[in-house]
Amino acid sequence: MDEETASQTETQAAIRDATYRALCEHGYADLTIQKIADEFPKSKSLLYYHYENKDEILVDLLEYVLDQYTVYDAIDKDNSPEEQLWTFIDDSLPESPDEEQRESQLALFELRSRALSEEAYREQITRIDRLTHDTLAGILRAGINDGTFRAVDVEETVEILVSMITGAMLRRATTSENITTQTRAAVTQFINSQLLTEQETE
Amino acid sequence: MDEETASQTETQAAIRDATYRALCEHGYADLTIQKIADEFPKSKSLLYYHYENKDEILVDLLEYVLDQYTVYDAIDKDNSPEEQLWTFIDDSLPESPDEEQRESQLALFELRSRALSEEAYREQITRIDRLTHDTLAGILRAGINDGTFRAVDVEETVEILVSMITGAMLRRATTSENITTQTRAAVTQFINSQLLTEQETE
Repeated sequence: MDEETASQTETQAAIRDATYRALCEHGYADLTIQKIADEFPKSKSLLYYHYENKDEILVDLLEYVLDQYTVYDAIDKDNSPEEQLWTFIDDSLPESPDEEQRESQLALFELRSRALSEEAYREQITRIDRLTHDTLAGILRAGINDGTFRAVDVEETVEILVSMITGAMLRRATTSENITTQTRAAVTQFINSQLLTEQETE
Repeated sequence: MDEETASQTETQAAIRDATYRALCEHGYADLTIQKIADEFPKSKSLLYYHYENKDEILVDLLEYVLDQYTVYDAIDKDNSPEEQLWTFIDDSLPESPDEEQRESQLALFELRSRALSEEAYREQITRIDRLTHDTLAGILRAGINDGTFRAVDVEETVEILVSMITGAMLRRATTSENITTQTRAAVTQFINSQLLTEQETE
């Protein structure tokens, strides 16, 4: 990477950090380029050099986060399929979400809600949905092969899990009752009773 | 109802109709009182007489729709619990949604996304979540009593259903792939295999 590219990459990373902080603080509707600039340690003109409007910055942020997620991959492939599944559930529906986890889920749903009307967001959300689907399908297949999971219909079970986890996350983020415990318990119950072979005690 | 009240009620109904049409057409972010006024057959001053900003109109719309839903109650109590459950699923996740159903779900999620940051919306969304939960719990209890459904844990099963249905609706509304068929099939599969006693053929 030459010097110019390195400096550009650094600037874009700083823009993404500023955007993420501004989005968490103000929410989508109140977000402006000025508010992103307020969080940005460099010259505001750099923001306008790279982006024409806040949607361009946000779609770029979404795409970047998604690429990172794919590359980084929170799930340790050395772990058993059951451990991988619980890591995935812990990341999506933590039992006691801290402030940072709450903020990052709110930010994700702010961006997801843009996909209701904007095609550029919709494409990224479709990628997230596919990635979630494929990750879970891989874990399920591995767990069926090694006998941890029952021989369920993978496609159908993954569809149930993706909808259930997405819905539980949205319900946590948009209701004022504390439904943290029961949304997590329902997913746990489904996995224990439908997926794990060791639960077949009858 | 005296004449003044009747006229006020009529005006408010016309405002709600105009708001709903404007919301479907423009989405939340681009919605303005002017755009609601464009859909409103009466004088724009009536809008400002009743409401100070678009959020007040929208929260009122949400509250009204919810009260109507409670009073109207799409589910016929004379039907069997199984028929009631499928009516509920058909309303939430139609097999082939028409344009009107698509629009009304998009509008609902536009409003739901406001609950990420606004307490007034959050209160209404919490009511919707509770209402959905209680409606399904009532159907499940009736079905367990008459032997249509297995003796499942009602609270846990309802939590799974509400999250699964909410998530399936959101995924339909925010992804560009056509996932209408598989989101519905997953819910159907869950109900057939987990709830209905007649499916216990083994």
